[in-house]
Parts: sequence; C-alpha cells; structure tokens
Amino acid sequence: MIHAKLPKIWYGGDYNPEQWDEQTMEEDLRMFKLAGIDVATVNVFSWALSQPDEDTYRFEWLDNIVDRLYREGIYVCLATSTAAHPAWMARKYPDVLRVDYEGRKRRFGGRHNSCPNSPTYRKYAGLMADKLGERYKDHPGLAAWHICNEYGGYCYCDNCAAAFRGWLKERYGSLETLNKVWNTGFWGHTFYDWDEIVVPNVLSEEWMYNRTNFQGISLDYRRFQSDSLLECYRTEYEELKRHTPQIRITTNLMGTYPELDYFKWARYMDVVSWDNYPSMETPVSYTAMAHDLMRGLKSGQPFMLMEQTPSQQNWQAYNSLKRPGVMRLWSYQAVARGADTVMFFQLRRSIGACEKFHGALIEHAGHEHTRVFRECAELGRELQTLGEQLLDSRVKARVAIVYDWDNRWAVELSSGPSVALKYTDEVHRYYDALYQLNIQADMVGADEDFTKYDVIIAPVMYMVKPGYAAKVEQFVQRGGAYVTTFFSGIVNEHDMVTVGGYPGELRKVLGIWAEEIDALLPEQSNQMVMSGDWGLMSGTYDCRLLCDLIHSEGAEVVAEYGSDFYKGRPVVTVNRFGGGEAWYIASSPEPRFLQHLLASLCEAKGIAPLLDAPAGVEVSEREKDGKRFMFLLNHNDMQVTVHIGDEPLLELLEPRIVQGTMELPPKGVAILAK
Amino acid sequence: MIHAKLPKIWYGGDYNPEQWDEQTMEEDLRMFKLAGIDVATVNVFSWALSQPDEDTYRFEWLDNIVDRLYREGIYVCLATSTAAHPAWMARKYPDVLRVDYEGRKRRFGGRHNSCPNSPTYRKYAGLMADKLGERYKDHPGLAAWHICNEYGGYCYCDNCAAAFRGWLKERYGSLETLNKVWNTGFWGHTFYDWDEIVVPNVLSEEWMYNRTNFQGISLDYRRFQSDSLLECYRTEYEELKRHTPQIRITTNLMGTYPELDYFKWARYMDVVSWDNYPSMETPVSYTAMAHDLMRGLKSGQPFMLMEQTPSQQNWQAYNSLKRPGVMRLWSYQAVARGADTVMFFQLRRSIGACEKFHGALIEHAGHEHTRVFRECAELGRELQTLGEQLLDSRVKARVAIVYDWDNRWAVELSSGPSVALKYTDEVHRYYDALYQLNIQADMVGADEDFTKYDVIIAPVMYMVKPGYAAKVEQFVQRGGAYVTTFFSGIVNEHDMVTVGGYPGELRKVLGIWAEEIDALLPEQSNQMVMSGDWGLMSGTYDCRLLCDLIHSEGAEVVAEYGSDFYKGRPVVTVNRFGGGEAWYIASSPEPRFLQHLLASLCEAKGIAPLLDAPAGVEVSEREKDGKRFMFLLNHNDMQVTVHIGDEPLLELLEPRIVQGTMELPPKGVAILAK
Amino acid sequence: MIHAKLPKIWYGGDYNPEQWDEQTMEEDLRMFKLAGIDVATVNVFSWALSQPDEDTYRFEWLDNIVDRLYREGIYVCLATSTAAHPAWMARKYPDVLRVDYEGRKRRFGGRHNSCPNSPTYRKYAGLMADKLGERYKDHPGLAAWHICNEYGGYCYCDNCAAAFRGWLKERYGSLETLNKVWNTGFWGHTFYDWDEIVVPNVLSEEWMYNRTNFQGISLDYRRFQSDSLLECYRTEYEELKRHTPQIRITTNLMGTYPELDYFKWARYMDVVSWDNYPSMETPVSYTAMAHDLMRGLKSGQPFMLMEQTPSQQNWQAYNSLKRPGVMRLWSYQAVARGADTVMFFQLRRSIGACEKFHGALIEHAGHEHTRVFRECAELGRELQTLGEQLLDSRVKARVAIVYDWDNRWAVELSSGPSVALKYTDEVHRYYDALYQLNIQADMVGADEDFTKYDVIIAPVMYMVKPGYAAKVEQFVQRGGAYVTTFFSGIVNEHDMVTVGGYPGELRKVLGIWAEEIDALLPEQSNQMVMSGDWGLMSGTYDCRLLCDLIHSEGAEVVAEYGSDFYKGRPVVTVNRFGGGEAWYIASSPEPRFLQHLLASLCEAKGIAPLLDAPAGVEVSEREKDGKRFMFLLNHNDMQVTVHIGDEPLLELLEPRIVQGTMELPPKGVAILAK
Repeated sequence: MIHAKLPKIWYGGDYNPEQWDEQTMEEDLRMFKLAGIDVATVNVFSWALSQPDEDTYRFEWLDNIVDRLYREGIYVCLATSTAAHPAWMARKYPDVLRVDYEGRKRRFGGRHNSCPNSPTYRKYAGLMADKLGERYKDHPGLAAWHICNEYGGYCYCDNCAAAFRGWLKERYGSLETLNKVWNTGFWGHTFYDWDEIVVPNVLSEEWMYNRTNFQGISLDYRRFQSDSLLECYRTEYEELKRHTPQIRITTNLMGTYPELDYFKWARYMDVVSWDNYPSMETPVSYTAMAHDLMRGLKSGQPFMLMEQTPSQQNWQAYNSLKRPGVMRLWSYQAVARGADTVMFFQLRRSIGACEKFHGALIEHAGHEHTRVFRECAELGRELQTLGEQLLDSRVKARVAIVYDWDNRWAVELSSGPSVALKYTDEVHRYYDALYQLNIQADMVGADEDFTKYDVIIAPVMYMVKPGYAAKVEQFVQRGGAYVTTFFSGIVNEHDMVTVGGYPGELRKVLGIWAEEIDALLPEQSNQMVMSGDWGLMSGTYDCRLLCDLIHSEGAEVVAEYGSDFYKGRPVVTVNRFGGGEAWYIASSPEPRFLQHLLASLCEAKGIAPLLDAPAGVEVSEREKDGKRFMFLLNHNDMQVTVHIGDEPLLELLEPRIVQGTMELPPKGVAILAK
Repeated sequence: MIHAKLPKIWYGGDYNPEQWDEQTMEEDLRMFKLAGIDVATVNVFSWALSQPDEDTYRFEWLDNIVDRLYREGIYVCLATSTAAHPAWMARKYPDVLRVDYEGRKRRFGGRHNSCPNSPTYRKYAGLMADKLGERYKDHPGLAAWHICNEYGGYCYCDNCAAAFRGWLKERYGSLETLNKVWNTGFWGHTFYDWDEIVVPNVLSEEWMYNRTNFQGISLDYRRFQSDSLLECYRTEYEELKRHTPQIRITTNLMGTYPELDYFKWARYMDVVSWDNYPSMETPVSYTAMAHDLMRGLKSGQPFMLMEQTPSQQNWQAYNSLKRPGVMRLWSYQAVARGADTVMFFQLRRSIGACEKFHGALIEHAGHEHTRVFRECAELGRELQTLGEQLLDSRVKARVAIVYDWDNRWAVELSSGPSVALKYTDEVHRYYDALYQLNIQADMVGADEDFTKYDVIIAPVMYMVKPGYAAKVEQFVQRGGAYVTTFFSGIVNEHDMVTVGGYPGELRKVLGIWAEEIDALLPEQSNQMVMSGDWGLMSGTYDCRLLCDLIHSEGAEVVAEYGSDFYKGRPVVTVNRFGGGEAWYIASSPEPRFLQHLLASLCEAKGIAPLLDAPAGVEVSEREKDGKRFMFLLNHNDMQVTVHIGDEPLLELLEPRIVQGTMELPPKGVAILAK
Repeated sequence: MIHAKLPKIWYGGDYNPEQWDEQTMEEDLRMFKLAGIDVATVNVFSWALSQPDEDTYRFEWLDNIVDRLYREGIYVCLATSTAAHPAWMARKYPDVLRVDYEGRKRRFGGRHNSCPNSPTYRKYAGLMADKLGERYKDHPGLAAWHICNEYGGYCYCDNCAAAFRGWLKERYGSLETLNKVWNTGFWGHTFYDWDEIVVPNVLSEEWMYNRTNFQGISLDYRRFQSDSLLECYRTEYEELKRHTPQIRITTNLMGTYPELDYFKWARYMDVVSWDNYPSMETPVSYTAMAHDLMRGLKSGQPFMLMEQTPSQQNWQAYNSLKRPGVMRLWSYQAVARGADTVMFFQLRRSIGACEKFHGALIEHAGHEHTRVFRECAELGRELQTLGEQLLDSRVKARVAIVYDWDNRWAVELSSGPSVALKYTDEVHRYYDALYQLNIQADMVGADEDFTKYDVIIAPVMYMVKPGYAAKVEQFVQRGGAYVTTFFSGIVNEHDMVTVGGYPGELRKVLGIWAEEIDALLPEQSNQMVMSGDWGLMSGTYDCRLLCDLIHSEGAEVVAEYGSDFYKGRPVVTVNRFGGGEAWYIASSPEPRFLQHLLASLCEAKGIAPLLDAPAGVEVSEREKDGKRFMFLLNHNDMQVTVHIGDEPLLELLEPRIVQGTMELPPKGVAILAK
C-alpha cells in the first residue's frame, strides 16, 4: 500500500496557493471537500520562495499550507522544489546553468534547468531536502515525498565533461579498453589522454538530437546523463530517508520519455509515479502501454498516477477539452492498470504565466458550477465508496513485452538502415495486438525474471547485453515461447556488431541467420505469405519498414516473402528449442497479422483473453487476496453490450449484481468483482 | 496636405545614383521627366559613404544629387541613412552590433542591424540627423524627411538587458510589483534583485520566436524593444525638427509587421508612410486592410505609400511580374484608401548586390522602351492630370475594427489553447466581410475615440487594458453595436487572467460568461445553427478553430452549436445593453456568416454599402470639402459592368460624365466625383 | 593508363584491417583472392594511429598491411590519412578545428573537420605526406596516392578571415576595386580598411547556407574556400610528387558536390577519382551525367571509380539493398562512361561506429557465402577476363554540355527570381534528353575548347566570364550550334549585371533581348507553341519555372508562349550567325520538347544515336586504337531485345559473336567490340 494513512485510492493533485491570497485558499478548501480531494502535491516550484538567498530559508508559508490542508483532512505529497533553481543562484553560481545541445551556456529561465553535475546544484538541492525532511518529518499530514519534478534534459557543460570522463574511467578502466569498445580506430578517433574526450553534441559528434558520427560516445553519454540526474535524485532521497525512513519517496516519471533509463531509476524509488498527458492523437492502447510500463518498472508494484489534466492541456498544438466522461474513463484506465492514486495537475488554475490555460479542478471561473468540477466531484465520491478494496491489488500476466532504454538509444543512434524505424512504435505494435485481444501483458525490463511468463515478446532487440541470450535460451528450453523481430541480436552492449551472422547471440535459439537487411521506402510494402495451414494465421499479410533476408538453420518457415527479389524466402520462422519455441518476425507486419499470431500463440499456451468484449472496450484485471477486479472501459462514443458470462458479479461503481450481459454507456466504466 | 510644395499626389521612389556614374544619372533624369516623377527618396543606405570615419563627413555627392534633381523639378524625400551602420563603426565600436535571438553577437553585415540601445548608434545616428538637418534645412528641393528605414528586429545584448531593467523599474517601481504582475511565483521565478532579470530569448525563456516559458517577461520585452527603436527614431526626429520645424518627418512602416507597436509610434510621426509588398498569395482585401490600418494609425490622416514595386519583387520565393495594369490598380488602391503619394522601390535597378532582381521604373535594359516604364509613365501622366483635388481628402467610416499590438503579442505568446490562432488573420476575416460588402471601415487602435462610430468590431480581444471595458460599455449604452469573439476579455494588460468567468471585464456588456474553450484540430469543424428567423443570417454555418462554451447571463441566443457534446449551447449571442447591443461570436465562422452578420448589423444602423458592385470590384471613397471621390477597382481579369446609379458623375481618369452603368476593363480603375 | 602495374580495370576498395586482428586479415586475404580483388585503398582515416603525438610516427602497422597485401598480389591505393585530425591535435592546437556556419568553434569530432587555413593542419598534413612518401616510395605494391578524403566543408574562423582578406587583396589589389565589384555602395557596405571585412555566415551576411545579403562577398568566399582546400591538397601533392614523380596522385571527388570548383581542382590532379552514391531516387541518367562530368574535368581522360557500395548505404534516410545485378550494372555504367577502376567502400564491414551498416564485399556474416560476395566475385572474374583492352579507351562526343561552379554558386546565391531554380537540375534536363536519345555527350567546363564539338549546350549560363561570349561567337560563326536558356548572360564574373538588355554579352550571337523574367509558382505552367512546321518538334509543349519575355533582334521565332499576358511572344528562337546557329530557350520545357529539339539538332549535324535501343537501355561507347566498345546497360527489370545491326560484333563479357538482335536480361550488360 502506498501509504497507510490513506486507506483508499488517493485523490488530489498539484496545488500552488502561494500564488494567491488566503481568502482564495479558504475557498479552495471548501471546494476540495466538495470534490472529495484527500491529497495535495505542494511546493513543486517554490525553491525561490523558500530560499530567497544563499543563507536564508523560510518555510512559514509552507507550514501554513500544510497545516491548513491537514486541518481539512488533506494529506500532502510534499515536493522538494528543486526542479527550478532560484534566479539569485543562477546569477551567483552560473555552474547551475546548463550548456545546451548547441553548446550554448544557458541563462536563467524556464524549469528543469539545472546542470546535474553542478556542485552548487547538488549542494543546495541536497540541503533543501535536508531542511524539508527535518521540518516536516513529524507532520501528521505528510503522506509522501515528491523529489524534484519530471527529471530530464541533458547538459553539455565543462563540469559534465569532467564528470563524463570520470564515469568512463570507472566504466572502462583504461583508454585501451575505451578505444576498443568505441572502435575509435574508425574515422581516426583514437584517444591517448582522457582529456581529449569532449562531450558529444552539435559542436563535436552529433546533430538533430539523435544523429551521431560516433555511436559509442553518444550511447555512453545518454547513460551518463541518465546516471547524473539519478545521482541528483539519490542525493535528495538519502537526505529525506534519513529523516523519515517510513515515508515513501518518489519522483514523477513520464512514461516512454526517451532520456532516462527508468528501469535503472526505479531501483531507487520507493514507489513509481508518473504524469499521463496523451495528445489528441495518442491511441488509447499507447496510454495503456505506458501505464503497464510504469507498473513494470518495479515488477508489478502499484504505482501513482501523479498528474493528468482534469480537462485540457495547454502545451499541445491543439488543446481540446476532454469530452464528458473521458477524465473519469482515463482515471479508471490508470487504476485498472495498477495505479493506486488519481491525481491532477492542477487543483486550481494559475492566473498568470505559462500554464494558465491548463485545465484544473477549479477553473478560472473560480466556483464549483462547472462541468469539469462536477465530473471531478463525481469521481471523488466514487473513489470514496470504493474504499480500500482495490489498494495494492496486482495485475497478473503470463505474457511479457521487453522494453529497454539502452536498446532504444542504440537503435535511434544507428546510422542506417532506416530513419523510419522507431523502437517504441514497434514495441507498441505488439502491445496493441494484445490490447485489442484483451490479453493482459506486462511491460518488463531486459533484466526481468523471465520464469514468471509463458510468452516473452522482444521486438527490435537490437542490443543483446551480457547474459540476455542465455536467459532467453533457458526460457525457451523450459517451454516458453519467445518472439522477436528483424534488427535483433545485432550488437553487444557497446554497440559492436556480433559477427558471423545476425541475430548474433540469438542465432542458436532462433534457428536462423540473417544475411541482409533491406529498407523499404515509406510507400513500399512486401507480403507475408503463410506457408500452408496455420489456422487463424493463414493467409497473406502486408509488411513494411525493414525486411531481413534470413536463412533457416533449423527453424520452420511459417511465412515467406510475397514479392521482390527475395520472394519465397522466409519472413516468419519458428524454431522448436527444448520444450519451447522461438519466433522470428523478419519484417514489420500489419496489425491483423500480429493479432492472429499472438492469439494463436496465447491460445496454444492456454492464455485466454480476459473477456470477449466489443471493439473499443478495454478490459484489464487486478487481483488481491484471491479476489479479482475486472475493469471494463468503454472508449466508444456509443453504448455497447458486453457479455460478461453467467457467473454473478458485483459491479462496484454502481453497486449491484450483474450477470449475462451488461450495457456500458458511452465512455462508461464498470468494475466487476469476483 | 503632406507638403505644400507638391500640390498633387507625389510620384516617385527610391533612387541611388551614387552606385553609378554621372552619365547614367543624366539618362535617369531624362527618363524621370518622361515618367512624370516629381519626388525621389535619396540617401537611404549611404551612411558609410557620407561618413567614411568617425570624424569625417562628406556630403558633396549628396549635394550633387539633390541639386540636380531639384534643377529637374524633382523634390527629395531625404533619408537619414541610419538603417545600416558603416563597417568601420562595427569594427571600432562593436556595441552597435546586435546580439541575436540565439544569443549570438552579430558581426558586420546586412542592414537594420544596429542595437537600439547602443550608445554609439544613438550618438552617431543623432549626429547624422543633425548634420543633414543643418546642411539641407534651406534646400528648396527638400520635401520631407525619411528617418532610417523599415525599423525592426530585436536585440538581446547586455546594453539592451541593462536598458530593459531600467525600463522595468520605470514601469513597475518595485520588484514586488514586478513579481506580482509577472506571477513569478509560478515555476519559481521570484526575483530579489533587478540584475537577476535576463533578456528572454533562446538562452533563457523563449524558442521559435513566439513560444515562451514566461509570458510576462516576453510581453514586456516586445514593448521594451518597440520603445527602444522608437527612442532611436525620436532622437533623430528631434534633431531634424530643430532645424526644419516646417518639414514633415516620417519613417516607413510595414503594415501588419509584428514587432513594433505602430499605434504608439504614430504619435511621434508627422505623417505615416509605409511599404506595400504583397506576395502572390496575399488577398487584395488584406492589402486594403493594411492600407486602412496605416490610415488608422493617425486617426484617418492621409498617409504616404513610400514603397511598392513597379513590377516584381526579389525576396519572395516566387517573384512573379505584376500583370499589365496591376501596378496602376494597386497604386489607386492605396490612394483610394488614403494615400497621398505613390512611390516605388526603386527608380533604377541596381546592377549589383541583393536587390538587383527587384523591379524598377528603369529596368536593367536601361531605356524607356519597356512595358514597366510605359505603365509607370502612363500613371505619371494620370496623376498629373488629377492634380490636387484628391489631396488631403478623408475616408469616412461608421464602422471600425479594433487592432492592438499588445493584444497581438499576448495572443501569440499564449501557451494554448491552439497554435492555429493568429490574431491578424482573425481580424482580417471580419475586415474581409466588410470589404466584400463594400462597406467602408476604419482600422483603429484600442485607444481610439469610439464615439465616432456606430459599429465597433474587436475580434479576439484577449487583452483588456484599463479603461477599455468602460469605454465599450459607454459605447453600447449610447446605442452602438459592439461585436467581439471567442478568446476575448481573458487577461489584463499584464496577461493576468481576470477570474470569475471569461470574458472578464466584458461579461457585463456581453451578458454571457464562458466556462471552457475547446480547441479543434485543423480538419475539424462545428456548426452555427441560427435560432429561428434572423433574416439574411438564417441557416447553418460552419465554424472552426476555437469553441467557447458560453452561458447566457441575459444575452439572447442567436445561434447554437450544431454538434459535439456542446450541441445546442450558444455560439452567437446578442445582449441589449442601454441603447445598443453587444454581440459575442464564440467560434471562428465561415466567411458567409460574417458577411450576413455584418450586412444585417450595418443595415440596422443605416450603414449602406458604397455601391452594389460585382464580385472582385473594390469600392472605396474619399471626401474633401463636401466632394466625394468614389474609386472603383476591378481586380478581375475580365471586364465587368458596374451599376453606378442614375446620378451623373464625373470620371476623373478619363474625364467624362458617366451614369447608369459603366464598363470597367480588366484591372481597370475609375474615380467618380460627386 | 592509370598505372602500368595493373594492366586491367582495377578492382578493389577501402580496407581498414587495423580495426581488427591478424586472423581476420588472413581470412580477408583469402576472400579477396576469391573475389579477384587487386587493389586496396588503405590508411584513409589512420592519422591518429600513425601519429600518436606531435613527435612520434609509427607505421609498422601499415607496413604490415601493405606488405601482406602485396604478397597476395594486391596493390595499394595509399591514402594520406589527413581527412580527420587526431584528437590530441585538436586539444593541443585548437586552430585545426573549424568554426562553423553559425559561427561556433567546433570541438573534436567527426571527420573532414580541419580548418583549411590552420597553420597546424597545413604543417602536419604536409609532414604526414612527406613521411608516407619517404617510407613507401619504393614499395612495389604502391599503385597510387590518395590524398585526404572527400574534401569539403567550409570554415569561418579568424585564420580563414585573415586568409580571405589576403586572397581578396591578391585578387582585387585595392579596396576601391573591391568596393566597386561588390557594389558595396548598396546597403551601405563601403569598406575603408581590409580588416573591416568579415566572413559571410549566419552572423553577418548569410542564412540557410545559400541565402545572402551580399552576393559579391558570398560568391568570393566560396571561391576562396575552394581554393583554400585546394592549397591543402596541393601541399600534400607536392610532398608526394617529390618522392614519387612516377606515381599518380588523386583525391576522391563527389560528382556534383556543390562546394568545390572541381574544374579548377582537376588541373592539379594526375587522375580524377570519385565516389558514386546515388540515392534510391536518383535517376540513372543523373548518375551517368555525374560520370561524364568527372570525365570532363580532365577533358576526357579516364577516371577512377574510387567508391561505390557493393550492396547498401547507411547514411541515406532509407537504405535499400542494391537489387541482384545492380552492383554489376552500375559498375559497368562507370566503365562505359570512362572509369578504369571499379572500387568499393568497403571491403569488409566495420563492426563498430558510424558505417557499420554500410555494405561491404565481406559482410558481417564474415564469409563468402552471401549474395553480395557472390556478385562481387563474379564481377571480379569478368574484369579479369576483360584484361587491358578497355584501359585508357576514350569516349567520343560531338555534343558538349557546359557546367560551371562559379555560375552555379552565383545562381544559387541570387535573391530572386525563383527559389525553385536549381542550376544542376536544369543542366540535367538537357543531359537527360541526350541520354534518352543515346547520343553521347561530354560535360565540359566553361574554359573547354569548343572547337572539338558541333553542338554546345549551356543551360542557365547566368554568369558570363571574360572571353566566354567571344568563344561562343567564334564557335557559332564556324558552324556550331549553340543552345542556351532563360536566365543566361545576366552578369559578369563579379555577379554584376550587364546592362542594356539580357542576355548581355550573348545578345549578339543569340539575336534576341529579354526584357523581363516572370517566375511561375510550382503548380503553374505556360506553353511553347511551335510556329509552323518544325518536323519532329512541331506541336505544343508545357514549360515552367521562369519565363523570359524576349524580343527578337534578328532571330527566328521557333515557338511562342501559349498563354498569360505574354501569349504569342517568343519562347524559343534560333539565330543564324555566320555558319552556325544559336538557340534560346526562354523557359524550362517538358522533357519531350528537349528530346525533340536535341534530336532535330543532332540530326541536322549528322550526329546519330549510338543505337536505337529500347527505353531503359543505356548505350555508351569507348574507343581505343580504332576499336570501339559499345556498352549496353539494361536498367529495366525485364528482359529486352536490342537491335544491334547486321554487323557481327564480339560480345566481350560472354565471349561470342552477336549480330542482328540480342537479348539483354533484366539488369543485364553487354560490351560489343567492333
């Protein structure tokens, strides 16, 4: 359970009353009560307010907020305010300012703006955590710590360069090793002194953020910057932990954010939290995948939905309103996939500066007579009636999809074969197939224990790190089904090719080798022609993007290319290996194929869909103490009829017994307990 | 009258004979005579020529030009040459060089390149104006002063930063006030020392020229830079005025140019002048609007058309020729809308450097036997025959459209709700409706006296400055019709939201409040379904972009949304208030609706179209001493028949009496006097 | 002959065994033998390896490679390794680092990264050439020198600025002259001291790489940078020549690469070599043109195909495989057009860094059992059987197309009339017409001897340098046919307009003058309506881009515009002048017109197509000692029948006698000797 003090799904969000007067705050508290709010995230961007100069700290304003909230029964998720340094600090200690990707020293402005290797930043961020820990450690309203905010962005300053060299020394020991693993012999990059190594940005090796002349240094710089920010986090974490060993500590992550290796970060977080901001074009299955990924960071432990908008965003190109019911629907989507909190940015709209057009519980109208407030208050009531029964329940899956940031970086830094290859999108294609089938999946790291699963899917597993191939072999040997794709098994953890034939270390388990990789233009496609009767999978499908030209070394050919000079050569293969099987999908298929493939595979493993629901109805399930909670989420704009089976079930949101069929209104939600 | 010396519409343009030899100038003068040229703008970019070093000034070359022109009866519009500093100055005093938006110190090059807060620039620009004033104050050929050229561009150097802090101190008095009006509490921006404030550009708060992390500072920086350039202008103005109090002073503006608050600038100009360079895609009604805006800067006073091309431009992507008749047609369009000059860039084409492919009276062929020369000479003859009768006549309008640069900046800096919202384009939609109806309108500033008008239209009046709302209330109270739109009344002059419900201070007069603002994707639309019989306006119309979800607080609902979850809710309302009415248009309608709305509104006010002319025929009217001059401008490629009424009228260009109907040839023009 | 040591078409490519171990090299040598490789380009990027610090040189690793290759009968094309300076040099002597177009000092990284005016670079690059010359001058395996690699890129540092001023002093002698030819009077750019001149980049005069405020300085900076890099090349050349006067020296060029004046460079090269990397969208006729241009650099002397990929590239957006047969087909295309070598980048794929996904003879699989290896080995065998008979044979053409880098720069720097005007594309339109007709053409510089030709085509000859017009007049006078187009004859070598009517100095020979130049939008077109019966050319054709409005001054009007206000005015003219004729094509016609025009023209001159071959079959011919080798290249994906005439011919690749018709398989090649 995230925190014993709140034996229900937390409901609340970001709150910044320091921007306005006491009277407004009184009004806020009245409305919070109306809306069933029980947690407020405070102090997110108040560093400059709390520390007006190097030696002065003042927290009275914060005491007032925390105390008053607590008096009204509202707990605080207390932020450490270190996501934007004060202006005086930037002026006095310019080392806190980043140097950007273009090599330009930044000046004061924005947020998420501190160099992670700035001694000043490290010192004063740690000190702030210490002060806050000391001051609020015994406050009964303290429910959780929220370090910094949405860590991200890279720095390219001289302090970072020096720290990078230190990080490299630590990692590689000698320049000989470094020259070898970066293959510096290529293009004459041999280093004879650590100080010859400069940071990879527009001024040296890179351009357009993920194009590089030198994969090795660029890959390591991503690892290093992720680690640097993680060290900042850990500095604050240790200060807080010292004061309050019993209070959970988090920082809010951002789903599939590219810059940080969240699997590594999660090791140092008591609980994962994240901010969910889909755009108007984001598929709902992508959001579901992001939730599952956040849940997977700590191997299934419930997470916090730290931020979402009650109504609209402000920083998208076109900021549409969430349609009636959508805020509720998406809130339950988070819960269905493992969230134990539903929290908003923001509880009251700011009247000035950058996010004044971002939605809030309390809109600029300032009163409760708005659609948004009504919908939020309705959800608040529901969450109160749900009580603690869902808390700490788990999602159970026998299928896992592997996701890996090192691999993502390496794929995206690769020069060739195609700029159209986007790692996360390829992963999402497989995720979406399972989602459409209502088969529960976990999103797991490459280090995850595979023995928990029957099916492991690892799309575009370009980089195979030490131990991974052996783990896959064991998994398959013991009866598991492993699915991987084109552009897998190409390089080791240093982005050095495993020669002898792709997919390198995975050749044995897959029973194939790939000779060439063809890249298709966006408008081009080939076909997968199934060889013989494969049941549901039979027929012909389109495929695109890349086409590996493979040879079977024992694998059965499941489908062949339908055109081009490699017509008739294998495009889908399956290799029986020990008690299991290993699939290779040599191109990027249309969704229909993936649904058929994964449906067949799961069926063979006895993995059934949670429910046979109409299109657009998302089904997910959490379990606790043998009790199962099935969530039905109708993303359609129309009412649908769902067959829920003959067993009588308890519908929790509108408490009643249902069985046979039930109607779900447009954007409707049901939670069925069994 | 712009200047008594030239009792006719001035005809001429930019002339740079210092680039070539005396013989060529002789030839030029011969051809100027042939073309009826009577004014030449000289000395625009000759600073380096006149001042070869810090201490030396030499004007003999200019004396020669001015004298020879005058001997041929050609007056000079004498520029001060300060739009491009000399190379020696940039080398000796780098403070004249700007720092650009990316934070880079510029080096010598280009034009419009001086830092407005450079002490060196201010000193030597002022000194140059002084020298020129002293030297030419008594020259009989001096017709007007032309300060600098096309002021524009912002600088981000340390001198600007220091001056910005001074400007802020002056404006806000204390950091407490500044912190409050910029809402610095948001994202931890509290300032404790003026020196902590840095200029907002890519290195601090902004990106992509109008995206910002902090609206307050970005808005004020635009005001400050506009003021800084204005101070440069005023420095020169004062020098010149001291020498020649009787000579009119101007600088050439650029229509809807975004960077300068031209309404503020116009206060310090004796006469407004501007450069008209439509692209191949610019609608003719947009050009008409720009003319009307320039006229509106000084509340209707005639202005100068300082530049247009006789044939083609060079800096557009595709520089098509002006078709036969178009140069004449567009020249009269300027005159029809208030211009008392018709001037070209340029009289002779340069043979080298950047604008050698920009059209000129004298083309590279170098003689008069060109289409362009013939058309220009023909126009010259016409303008001579027109004489002084049109001079100083005024355009009379009972409808005004409000345009405001502060508002434009604030709208464009806003983060949300839609990147597709372009202030000037929304204004143009309303302007275009009146233009198509041939209803004369003024483009006025927010400070204009509203009592002159019967109808005031203020699209997207997002920012309501002090006194504005009261003025609107008085206007409506006294019987006026006020029309405004979605995204109006949101913020005060500091871009701080007026809470309690949009449109804030305008709620009372409009009788509605807006709860939410929905943003539509470019391909999406909603509908305006008229409630009942609204005569011409009845029916259903498309609307796009943004949809305010409004509630009537007394206003009559004129139309309702036709779809989406707010179907049936008001989209057009009218509120009877005192003797008048206030309209709210909650979305961006198709042109047909605006024409129907404004036709109805004007009809109700007894405002008739100038003429019921065929499509593509622009009609505008100027008046003087009770005499009216109606311009008919046929923008079509075909001949049209215009019904001009039964009154016999004098056609000035081809002097004759016309009545009943008249034929206008393709691109044809008529001026009818009554 | 490129080198006597290899009396056959060289076959080989880039080889970098220093990246891997001895055992791999053994394996490489074995496979090279299998593939018929006889030349390897080594040491391209090994500066840092050979010179680990300022004072130490070590070449043992290179000795080993050169020796072992030679032992296996493989010669070396020995590179000087100066295309990427060592990291230690960048750190110790930052002057080797460039300043980029944005004015940013670069840091160590990438390749082609040295400032051409860096004293350090010049010194150590020269020294390296000296050391290599000294060490390998007597090595029997040394077949050629390969200086640096793919010279290119401009620098904008202070050393370059100083050198630029020196270059300008040399060129112009005085500031008076410079001010005149740059027309600095325009926009106030008059210079009074050489030190006031700064380099033209984003910080001063330019933006977007070819947009400029000042054509004069920008044009000269391109000339200067091309010269600066050429001086680097010449420094190395002289060192090498001193040691090995008998060994041919080259550097690899890049076809229509924009930044260097290759005609000037070729004067200092013993043999031209180039790297052929068409993208998936490059027309085959464009590649053919590039080959012909490379051949034309040294007036027809055979050239080296230094690089092409055996299979796929890595740095294109979409890197498709070369289809079966295409590598062979394109290799013979090079030979057909004058190449005496067929060389690859690369012989073995790197396993790390930037080009690991670039194709190679030996792929990552590491063995010979790949499609790519098999195709390469097959070609190797063929080239061995061809022996020396093709070596040093020449292409004979009576038609020449003029290509000029000065002109290209000037056209692309021009502000107006249309951004759509691309010089090389317009040249290619004419080239393609001849290509489709199988009429052999030479691509020649503006300085070429025209008397060798019967037809000279000079599209968009905007800049007419001294002597050019007289040469054209003589050419036509003596009976030649000269064809030129719109936007020709506009300026002199300083980009100063020749006044009096376009096309300036070419007016007399063309018998027309152009009054105006209209620019069309991309979607717009006009028509060329042929006047009367012009045989094959009769009819109506589309034209686009620009439309010169011309007047005949004696030329016959061949076609008139079909629409717009200049309908009926001349668009194609021919002027009889002496014994010849001069054509003016006033707009950019559709391909069909150009084929008809050039077919007619050539027919009239008795220039016949090499063969009447089916579409998609390229025909080219080389001659030696009276023997002719006709290449038939089937670019189609299907088999075609070619009528080769009744004469019995020897097919060299599959030795046999052919006559009448022959079948060419898809992508098939035949070489017919007569």
